[in-house]
Amino acid sequence: MILSASTKRFIRSKVWMHSTLPKAGFQTSVASWNRRIVPLTTSKRPELKRHNHFKQISQDDLDYFRTVLSPNNILHDTTEQTPGSSFWPLNVDFFNLYRGSSTLCLYPTNTQQVADILRYCNTNRLAVVPQGGNTGVSGGAVPVFDEIIINMSKMNNIRSFDNISGVVVVDGGVVLEALDQYLAEKGFMVPLDLGAKGSCQLGGNVSTNAGGLRLMRYGNMHGNVLGLEIVLPDGTIVDNLSTLRKDNTGYDLKQIFIGAEGTLGLVTGVSLLTPQRPKSTNVVMVAMNTFEDVQQAFKMAKQDLSEILSAFEFWDKESIDVVKKGMNLEIPYPIASDSKFYALLESQGSNQEHDQEKLDSYLGRLLEAGVAVDGVMAQDAKQMNALWSWREKIPEAINNLGAAMTYDFAMPVPLFYKMVNDSKKYFEERGLLGEGKVYSNLLAFGHVGDGNLHIMANVKDFDPKIHENMDDFVFEWAIKHKGSITAEHGIGISKVNYMTRCKTPAQLKMMRAIKDTFDPNGIMNPYKVIPSQ
Amino acid sequence: MILSASTKRFIRSKVWMHSTLPKAGFQTSVASWNRRIVPLTTSKRPELKRHNHFKQISQDDLDYFRTVLSPNNILHDTTEQTPGSSFWPLNVDFFNLYRGSSTLCLYPTNTQQVADILRYCNTNRLAVVPQGGNTGVSGGAVPVFDEIIINMSKMNNIRSFDNISGVVVVDGGVVLEALDQYLAEKGFMVPLDLGAKGSCQLGGNVSTNAGGLRLMRYGNMHGNVLGLEIVLPDGTIVDNLSTLRKDNTGYDLKQIFIGAEGTLGLVTGVSLLTPQRPKSTNVVMVAMNTFEDVQQAFKMAKQDLSEILSAFEFWDKESIDVVKKGMNLEIPYPIASDSKFYALLESQGSNQEHDQEKLDSYLGRLLEAGVAVDGVMAQDAKQMNALWSWREKIPEAINNLGAAMTYDFAMPVPLFYKMVNDSKKYFEERGLLGEGKVYSNLLAFGHVGDGNLHIMANVKDFDPKIHENMDDFVFEWAIKHKGSITAEHGIGISKVNYMTRCKTPAQLKMMRAIKDTFDPNGIMNPYKVIPSQ
Repeated sequence: MILSASTKRFIRSKVWMHSTLPKAGFQTSVASWNRRIVPLTTSKRPELKRHNHFKQISQDDLDYFRTVLSPNNILHDTTEQTPGSSFWPLNVDFFNLYRGSSTLCLYPTNTQQVADILRYCNTNRLAVVPQGGNTGVSGGAVPVFDEIIINMSKMNNIRSFDNISGVVVVDGGVVLEALDQYLAEKGFMVPLDLGAKGSCQLGGNVSTNAGGLRLMRYGNMHGNVLGLEIVLPDGTIVDNLSTLRKDNTGYDLKQIFIGAEGTLGLVTGVSLLTPQRPKSTNVVMVAMNTFEDVQQAFKMAKQDLSEILSAFEFWDKESIDVVKKGMNLEIPYPIASDSKFYALLESQGSNQEHDQEKLDSYLGRLLEAGVAVDGVMAQDAKQMNALWSWREKIPEAINNLGAAMTYDFAMPVPLFYKMVNDSKKYFEERGLLGEGKVYSNLLAFGHVGDGNLHIMANVKDFDPKIHENMDDFVFEWAIKHKGSITAEHGIGISKVNYMTRCKTPAQLKMMRAIKDTFDPNGIMNPYKVIPSQ
Repeated sequence: MILSASTKRFIRSKVWMHSTLPKAGFQTSVASWNRRIVPLTTSKRPELKRHNHFKQISQDDLDYFRTVLSPNNILHDTTEQTPGSSFWPLNVDFFNLYRGSSTLCLYPTNTQQVADILRYCNTNRLAVVPQGGNTGVSGGAVPVFDEIIINMSKMNNIRSFDNISGVVVVDGGVVLEALDQYLAEKGFMVPLDLGAKGSCQLGGNVSTNAGGLRLMRYGNMHGNVLGLEIVLPDGTIVDNLSTLRKDNTGYDLKQIFIGAEGTLGLVTGVSLLTPQRPKSTNVVMVAMNTFEDVQQAFKMAKQDLSEILSAFEFWDKESIDVVKKGMNLEIPYPIASDSKFYALLESQGSNQEHDQEKLDSYLGRLLEAGVAVDGVMAQDAKQMNALWSWREKIPEAINNLGAAMTYDFAMPVPLFYKMVNDSKKYFEERGLLGEGKVYSNLLAFGHVGDGNLHIMANVKDFDPKIHENMDDFVFEWAIKHKGSITAEHGIGISKVNYMTRCKTPAQLKMMRAIKDTFDPNGIMNPYKVIPSQ
């Protein structure tokens, strides 16, 4: 292969990178901020009223649960809850924005126990909230009032794996990263990857239709989930753990539970199609001056990398500043950090030589065309992780700097940065955005490969009105431009009030009909997803 | 690249192929057999009773439909139906196995007309059957009694296409091949491919969750359909034609209509994610001696071809004999035809040189390991089509030889040929299988890449008992081995009686609950999919 001048420049920057990248990756700072008192959800959302028909937990109920679960799988605590108490993390969501006041958490260890619990709760009108890794960012996995938490972390067995078809069957409580490590030994991988992989659970991934970093390559949960075991509110166990890739015997019932956020039933088992682990992975970071260049780089990547492209992420300069500050980093950014935009590309293929050749050709074209101004290619797995970290640490970093709002839009890629600029302009004109102001550190990043934009910003305090101001502006903007106000984060409690604006009455009627069909008493994760009438 | 001895042998056979393949592809024979009298479905299935609450068509109904549709979009014919009459093909299914007795076919040209028709039918208890290209093989797209046919062929506009995201929005009546040709000009392709592509429609593909030849690479409809426009029986138009790849705003309502076979609503619009057309396509046919070799060849293909493998089909020697006979072919089979098994592999990638290198290496390994005994690689598009034809013409060929039964199983690949051998043995021992006997030409082929086996056989006559005998044996076998009795063909009318054996009472209860929710009067494609209680 003959290297063009620009490709050589890329190769040079690889060497440069090799000498400047941090050896040990990121040091995570411990943010004391996370331990602050999170106000109750009901104080932020006074319009929410506890449903009258739900019973409060009685001694009889506790006695029953003790017949189902062993004592160490029941956590009951009616003392005042503080950030230090054991019950606190069960009631508080990942971003410290929502807090419930449950006093009972149940930890089933098998499907029959889940069935026994739900049947009893349904009969006795006890509301429940299913909880996986509690890494959701829409407040969907924590109680609003005193709902009983059904925490799935103790149902975490890998039930079976077939190394010919690549189909794995797991308990709902299996952690994503644990499953990926298990599969790695067999030469396979989980087809989704999230920043929260170390904590999030497969049942939660299914219930929230998790998207993540490689959806553009491997598709979504609706395509990769082959079967589910679900417990309905009345205690019926629906065993639909098919391991078949094709099965058209009647309605595909599992689909309606994918992304239902635990409001229809509880996912206790998942049958998942897993792809073979790639023999060759490459990660590249490039710097660009305009968002038009980002789009052009993506278009060229689809042409040149095609079947080996597994991720195309972008972030803006503000994101880098926040990661440096929020993670307390002293290490230099691996490429020129004065560009306005950055992209991370990942390739996954079966032949390192071929993949390298495709990447070299692509990167050469990028530089020659003046689309990218600089770039680095990771030389080993450690460097790949380091490059990925700059992208993956953005949410954690901004969270470390103070209360943070997070947004998750789907829209045509050309609109991405128009939305960011329009938002900045709107809040700047009103004197609300900037250091020391109501909103600060407004940044943007996202999955270009599947049209998913994240916007985050720090907020000065917990005044619900402040939240609503930004919510109103960006949600209206998204709806006006035919985008989705939640591409992958779901509705939970945080966006339930916007459902009437982004769905037609016909759609809401259908959702309510499905909810009433499967959960007639409304005990499953109440107040979430479907707006009250 | 240094060629190994075995790779060279492969290259040689390429040259050989080049000189022996038919230039003009296949000549389709006209089978007079297809024009025979197909008995009414109700005569084969006397247990089916017309639902009493359905009204019969009156003059008032016709008058109403004339206010909605122009006269040339209404076909009403109460004369006796014969194979030559214009109404015949609307009442008879693709394999000439099922025939209804409808006298009214409506051809809406827009969504509002569909809504007006369904609202009227729902109010007046007139049963309907939605009909696309009528290429379904489970009798799902033709009436059982006198249901009104709503034929979608005149709703065939491509509504929009975005060449950045690859999202296309089409009317439900657009023909698959027409859409693919439209996309080809833009550098994109439909992510599914079926033998029936020249006739089948996107709305039907969605309603039957069509699988086909490249599902292993591009995934199923649940992953590729981004949005649907659906008309509910009460005339509500649910406009959910999202063009977003990610959208987690509430329940993913479209999913339950994918594969519902028109029993819940009528699909009038489809938003579909389409991949870029590959720059490089290769097709290879290999001959093997045992089914273990087929599995080994598949395993090696997943390793060596990985991300470029787009299809892995197999068929047995019996299939070749039937194609030769049924298509009236004088041309030689492109490779040694005395092997017991054959596989067709297709690669799709972005770099012909890389793909060729991967294929050469793979094929070399196959021959060196003694897995394949012979093979050919197509040298141009015409040869690719010719190789594909040997696989795609199997159903048409056996259909040309007489009444044919077709089966469609999903199961672990290692079981594929055990099922075929067990079936042969069972019917041979009873003197039922062989030339001139009740069953003949029993053959097998299928999509190894996604665990989908097709078995077909000719049957001597239309005695329903004969059908039931084979149905009973193979369906029981599949259920016993945890397979699916319909991987991609669906339930329709042909397998509805087996639903109680392959689904749990809990699953059937859920299906009935969904049916009652969306179609409380049961007017949508009655008698199909869900067994009567």
